[in-house]
Amino acid sequence: MTLFYSKKLNTLSSDESNHCLRTLRKKINDTILITQGDGVIHSAKIVDITNNIVTYQNIKIIEKKKKKVHIHIAISPPKNRTRFEWFLEKVTEIGIDIISPVICENSERREINYDRSKKILISAMKQSKNSFLPIINKPILFNDIVKKSTQNSYIAHCYQDDKKDFKNILLNKKKLHEITLFIGPEGDFSKKELNFAIKMGIIPVTLGENRLRTETAGIIGCNMINLLA
Amino acid sequence: MTLFYSKKLNTLSSDESNHCLRTLRKKINDTILITQGDGVIHSAKIVDITNNIVTYQNIKIIEKKKKKVHIHIAISPPKNRTRFEWFLEKVTEIGIDIISPVICENSERREINYDRSKKILISAMKQSKNSFLPIINKPILFNDIVKKSTQNSYIAHCYQDDKKDFKNILLNKKKLHEITLFIGPEGDFSKKELNFAIKMGIIPVTLGENRLRTETAGIIGCNMINLLA
Repeated sequence: MTLFYSKKLNTLSSDESNHCLRTLRKKINDTILITQGDGVIHSAKIVDITNNIVTYQNIKIIEKKKKKVHIHIAISPPKNRTRFEWFLEKVTEIGIDIISPVICENSERREINYDRSKKILISAMKQSKNSFLPIINKPILFNDIVKKSTQNSYIAHCYQDDKKDFKNILLNKKKLHEITLFIGPEGDFSKKELNFAIKMGIIPVTLGENRLRTETAGIIGCNMINLLA
Repeated sequence: MTLFYSKKLNTLSSDESNHCLRTLRKKINDTILITQGDGVIHSAKIVDITNNIVTYQNIKIIEKKKKKVHIHIAISPPKNRTRFEWFLEKVTEIGIDIISPVICENSERREINYDRSKKILISAMKQSKNSFLPIINKPILFNDIVKKSTQNSYIAHCYQDDKKDFKNILLNKKKLHEITLFIGPEGDFSKKELNFAIKMGIIPVTLGENRLRTETAGIIGCNMINLLA
């Protein structure tokens, strides 16, 4: 059964009403499934359709999920927009909590289409019947986000420098509540950025032997945390 | 340094020569890196350029990699061609040995553009400096590939039936040499297909709680094997 996203619990937005009425041809008295993107799925009954807006009542919780770990990926959006949108879709399917687009020295793209990104997240959440809607932040400068970074923050880079195996870190840590992973742009983080991150307590890591594209590293890193943390 | 793919060790193909001469503007006496897609990287010197074809000599092995496990993903190509091409690119970056497009009862697409697929694999291998070129088979019927399946074959499906956690299987198995994972089409495998696979010794598994798109399941499954097997 299709899952609808509803910010507040009583009416569907115009986009969601459209999906409900035009694509799925739902009618008054039909039952629908709704999530606010907080891990809870409700069932409800359509009680009114006015001006193509669906109103529902008789709301019952039918599933409540809790996250074992909160995942935050801070990533420099790849030059190619489609690659970033793929990343958004895939990490939503796999499971992620916060996405922060980060502007680095070598970032070729310094802005994102925020509304379009949000739509992709909603659509991927609905499609995968995952009731967690990730938060996407506005783009932020690398130094600014690093200054705000919390415990359990890691930075994946391609320099030959000393770095830890992210897999081993995840396997050996006990009960992580939140984890942040930084993924750099096509040309990697600059040495200056990397040193600043290390100075601020962020731990340099490798995701494995292969050289991955930015969006692949983001997807793989997110999967590793879901799998092992 | 750019990695070139060369079937036989002495000249580059017309595509690769073009990349070498036009894009990278290489000249006689320049050194290049070459792989035959077998895990070995060679360095060599350009000795001749005739009719835009690069000939090289003085070939030396500079890196030789061995696989710890051979990964075979048998996947029903998604309806949308781009999604399949994304899968090809991503699993090549992550590391895979054999890709078998499989035609299932619910497969909406029953053929692939084979030459285009091969080009994507070569390009992803070069880009990620991964010296293993995956083999891509011609599309094969589900029942035919199942009949040929070897030990350590697994099938991921979305039915509520009894199935094992793929993660635990990988964590608890010792020294797998080869592993095959079947990923179904958008509408999943049919019950008949699933039962036939089980009868033939293929073990039903789940890749996790979330419902993943076909290409995401393929990428995630491939990553799990690389990470844990």
